[in-house]
Amino acid sequence: MEAAMIAPALALTAFLAAPAGAQTRSAPDLLPIPARVSSMGGEFRLTPDFKVALEGPAPARLRKALARFRRRLSDRTGLRLAPETGPQPAALAVSIQRTGRLVLHEDETYGLEVSSSAMRLSARTDIGAIRGLETLLQLLDADANGYFFSAVRIEDKPRFPWRGLLMDVSRHFMPVEVLKRNIDGLAAVKMNVLHLHLSDYQGFRVECLSFPRLHEQGSDGWYYTQEQIREILAYADERGVRVVPEFDIPGHSTSWFVGYPELASTPGPYRVERRYGVFSSAFNPAAQSTYAFLDKFFAEMAVLFPDDYVHIGGDEVDGADWEANPGIRKFMKDNAIADTHELQAYFNQRLLAILGKYGKKMIGWDEILRPDMPKSIVIQSWQGRQRLAESAKNGFMGILSADYYIDIYKSAGFHYLNDPLDKESSLSEEERARVLGGEATMWSEFVTPENIDARVWPRTAAIAERLWSPAQVDDLDDMYRRLAKASLRLEELGLTHIKNYDMMLRRLAGGPDTAAVKTLADVLEPVKDWWRFSRETPYQTGSPYTRLVDAVAAESEVARSFAKLVDEFLADRKTGAQEIRARLIQWSMNDARFQPIARRSPILREALPLSANLSGLARAGLRSLDHIPGGGMDKALTRELMGLVDEARTDYGGAQLAVTVSVQKLVEAAARQP
Amino acid sequence: MEAAMIAPALALTAFLAAPAGAQTRSAPDLLPIPARVSSMGGEFRLTPDFKVALEGPAPARLRKALARFRRRLSDRTGLRLAPETGPQPAALAVSIQRTGRLVLHEDETYGLEVSSSAMRLSARTDIGAIRGLETLLQLLDADANGYFFSAVRIEDKPRFPWRGLLMDVSRHFMPVEVLKRNIDGLAAVKMNVLHLHLSDYQGFRVECLSFPRLHEQGSDGWYYTQEQIREILAYADERGVRVVPEFDIPGHSTSWFVGYPELASTPGPYRVERRYGVFSSAFNPAAQSTYAFLDKFFAEMAVLFPDDYVHIGGDEVDGADWEANPGIRKFMKDNAIADTHELQAYFNQRLLAILGKYGKKMIGWDEILRPDMPKSIVIQSWQGRQRLAESAKNGFMGILSADYYIDIYKSAGFHYLNDPLDKESSLSEEERARVLGGEATMWSEFVTPENIDARVWPRTAAIAERLWSPAQVDDLDDMYRRLAKASLRLEELGLTHIKNYDMMLRRLAGGPDTAAVKTLADVLEPVKDWWRFSRETPYQTGSPYTRLVDAVAAESEVARSFAKLVDEFLADRKTGAQEIRARLIQWSMNDARFQPIARRSPILREALPLSANLSGLARAGLRSLDHIPGGGMDKALTRELMGLVDEARTDYGGAQLAVTVSVQKLVEAAARQP
Repeated sequence: MEAAMIAPALALTAFLAAPAGAQTRSAPDLLPIPARVSSMGGEFRLTPDFKVALEGPAPARLRKALARFRRRLSDRTGLRLAPETGPQPAALAVSIQRTGRLVLHEDETYGLEVSSSAMRLSARTDIGAIRGLETLLQLLDADANGYFFSAVRIEDKPRFPWRGLLMDVSRHFMPVEVLKRNIDGLAAVKMNVLHLHLSDYQGFRVECLSFPRLHEQGSDGWYYTQEQIREILAYADERGVRVVPEFDIPGHSTSWFVGYPELASTPGPYRVERRYGVFSSAFNPAAQSTYAFLDKFFAEMAVLFPDDYVHIGGDEVDGADWEANPGIRKFMKDNAIADTHELQAYFNQRLLAILGKYGKKMIGWDEILRPDMPKSIVIQSWQGRQRLAESAKNGFMGILSADYYIDIYKSAGFHYLNDPLDKESSLSEEERARVLGGEATMWSEFVTPENIDARVWPRTAAIAERLWSPAQVDDLDDMYRRLAKASLRLEELGLTHIKNYDMMLRRLAGGPDTAAVKTLADVLEPVKDWWRFSRETPYQTGSPYTRLVDAVAAESEVARSFAKLVDEFLADRKTGAQEIRARLIQWSMNDARFQPIARRSPILREALPLSANLSGLARAGLRSLDHIPGGGMDKALTRELMGLVDEARTDYGGAQLAVTVSVQKLVEAAARQP
Repeated sequence: MEAAMIAPALALTAFLAAPAGAQTRSAPDLLPIPARVSSMGGEFRLTPDFKVALEGPAPARLRKALARFRRRLSDRTGLRLAPETGPQPAALAVSIQRTGRLVLHEDETYGLEVSSSAMRLSARTDIGAIRGLETLLQLLDADANGYFFSAVRIEDKPRFPWRGLLMDVSRHFMPVEVLKRNIDGLAAVKMNVLHLHLSDYQGFRVECLSFPRLHEQGSDGWYYTQEQIREILAYADERGVRVVPEFDIPGHSTSWFVGYPELASTPGPYRVERRYGVFSSAFNPAAQSTYAFLDKFFAEMAVLFPDDYVHIGGDEVDGADWEANPGIRKFMKDNAIADTHELQAYFNQRLLAILGKYGKKMIGWDEILRPDMPKSIVIQSWQGRQRLAESAKNGFMGILSADYYIDIYKSAGFHYLNDPLDKESSLSEEERARVLGGEATMWSEFVTPENIDARVWPRTAAIAERLWSPAQVDDLDDMYRRLAKASLRLEELGLTHIKNYDMMLRRLAGGPDTAAVKTLADVLEPVKDWWRFSRETPYQTGSPYTRLVDAVAAESEVARSFAKLVDEFLADRKTGAQEIRARLIQWSMNDARFQPIARRSPILREALPLSANLSGLARAGLRSLDHIPGGGMDKALTRELMGLVDEARTDYGGAQLAVTVSVQKLVEAAARQP
């Protein structure tokens, strides 16, 4: 970097402390916030003769990234930019020192200088430059005179080297274009790993030439050809995103056994699993033929997937099928293997040797961690950062996924405040370096190509910031403000999280007029954690995922802003009263508009009680408002209104009202003695 | 068909004349309308134990179609249907006589009987059954008691055997998923041909193993691998849709010459063309090496594309490059070839021999028609049905594309009333049979993967009905009513014509609040015909297609319904006055809301005069309303208001207001002497 490093400062504070005389302007809505940002005052104006010059190495990855950058700039501004990159004088000079490799710990730093006369992007690698181009696009701003980039100096690098998203393509298969647009999303928020969960009970999703019955019989026809895998890999490579394949063994493996029952611990026959849950089917770790099979299998996959790491799963093996097999019991006795945990450790050691033979390192879930494993493995922790810290102390690298389970509908804020490293952690510098980052996990029981983007985005962008930006960046309100803007920018890349919401509501309403359905849907959220599984007739892979619960956002933005309004109002009993009342009136009248639609569209019938409860809640809120600021609402009325609030807590059709607590606060405030 | 043929009758009349005692219910919104429909009274209730039984042959194509049918039924209703198909008793019995072939004139007839106790679908081929399943899905209805199919008897078959959509993937490449979702759309409206325009000046789009520089140097990297072509073909085959490849030669061929300049009539070098227009580059028809090349080329493509027909383009050869080449001039002299038209005829004869060698028939644009061509060729007419009728008299088969040019933004109604056969046509039965149907043509100068669906749909559904339904089905209002519903059903298949509109408006507005932009966009249409080409700085392939003109619909639904309102109002000077006034008030106030958005979002600035003119128009309309029903508005005011109307005719940024004529009618009515 030729620019002198400037004093460390968080983006916003630095920006708000812009040089005197600079135009007052809001901070750019960068997400993730860079390590160091300072505003320089002024701006660089974008004109149609905008040119980019590449100085130094110009690998294909960077040239393609620049072409995409120009396309996005042109599409957003409507300006037809001068053709291709060109010689000096260029408006944007881009320089790198070398071509980056898609490996753990590759250098992703970049520096960006925007002045009123020129822009310069410098990075050690093309991957760093790609991160910088995303920042630059986020800096694009406009006023009545046209488009511009605010003058700024940025020095940036990630806090963690492993920032990923797991996509489970086994429970529900995701076509190539779903992966591609999500890779675009990852790159836009500077994530660098797509973890593909390629096999599980419910499906084996890769064409395997050595053992074709894997994809032929284990996939219902839904799998990626090797050509398609290469297409996905190339797409990810061009965006500086690693692709880590996961083949979850020895459990979670029914789909392997449909075509190759001899691999299993019990005779079968096996069918592709339609149900969800944890099942006992598992590879036979006592049979030498198992390892011969896996050797040949990984020999092929090691070539197909170039990443250094192969994820072998290793989670949730209940051991029942092993104990039920006399041959396996005998094997354990003969080899002094004490229990099924030891047996899995044995299996993993064999696997380690196989992966090593093909130049691969192992990553797996918590369960694979044993003291005798080599220090080259990476632990993916679904059990929490405490586990991760212990592993780090014991010399093991790890990434966090606990509390990044985006499939269970928790808030962006919840994920955001979940740091892979405890602030009060007693880890040494060296131990801390073993905590590599984290991965959001998109388990796909409840998602289809239609709504998966809405489960991944925008919440994964909050996780991306947690893993990229300095630990001190933790202002929730500011994050949500920037997340809303980032969400719209993600949509430009082809992600469907916003537009498919409207589409699903149109289908539910059976017509273009979705106003009443949307008013209800806007304040609903799916039941959190894993409760949705137990709420109804068991879901299966073939169930419809087109119901209201599948359309509503994981986190209601309307409910979140309403909660904020109520809190502000209750602080001084004045602010926002009118807005709160307007909202409540809208909700109180909505049930009468929703009912006739649900009568014409029976798929909405399950939401009738939710609709009635929303209007009930709203009435409770309105009555309470009448008693605030005075307070002292009489007890009988308070009981009645609290009854409405309590009723509104019940979930129906897997969904629940997300404004109940806010209304409860209003009722309680109204009831409080003055 | 085992069901007795019932009296021929148009769907709606038959339905409205349902048996006495049957519940009064609106006609089902079928599109295209079947050849014969009669309502039987009553309905079949859909329950979760709904099963389908296949009687007789059960080819994979049909089994997959049934799986998709069940998926769509389940997704729309939220009902988890009983697993797979099963044995009797089934709610829906499907029977076919044989597996259909994807060839011209394949049998697509089907019969459908829905009674309160059972449903039966019978067809000669699985392709016919697939058409019937689409009809059945359109019959799905609902009331307060749940979902049902109205009892009905349908005997259906297409009027024309060739019902297609041309997609130009040369001017702008369309990724595989764009083709797939449009194939779903074609099947949903019972079209049966996807015509891929695979090469042109601006790009060669198929991997060619014999001559790899074609795709390597002629595509900018945007081409289909042969694996992807096979994927598209399989997808289309499963839906009963033929794929006809077009390689446009000897003109429209610059992209071939980038890698193989020796094929051209002038020495080159050649670059992939970025501009639009008609260029003089053409194959050298005098060189024998040209035919050796094409022989090897078509040998490969004949295997890749299984359809009987290969489209060789043949349009718009200006002959300039031929006349400029002394060798070609000499060749013409030596062979007594009178002019360049004769030379192209010679070229086509050679081509015909090559295609014949590989078992292919030829289709091409009007220009290829010469009396000495064999009667097996098919003429695709961009010159009109008169041409088509003449050809038919001369023994040639043809399809109509003139007036199905959906790229030039004409109305669904315009296309709908354009029949391949003149009602007063003097053609004999045999000659009429040579008019095979038609194709909508989606030339892609102004479309990208983002907005192509909105240019194809829903208007192509109107063309589909023209080509499928009896000629007498021509009620425009009824078509538009059904088209609106069909449009929503098309969205369920993944088509983006509705949802990308909102997305594009969000990007234009730079935020989620698009109300003012939408109010304006809703009454805009792109300039019609080819005028858009000449309106601004020349467009190129790399221009941004994200401007307001690219987002607005080809046909404004708001303007259409407003025009209807105004006509009804002016007929009796009462009906709809309030609704008209409400609209006008909304428009009159919109400019004040639009302006601040356009200030923040410069891409919208080009629409400022349109916004101002809309508000001006609305004021003119409101002032005129004040003088109706009386009339006799004074001349000065009339002149002033007509001035506003005239001003509103000007287009800006390629777009124009679509409500001008309606407001003009109001002004004229107000001015008329009482």
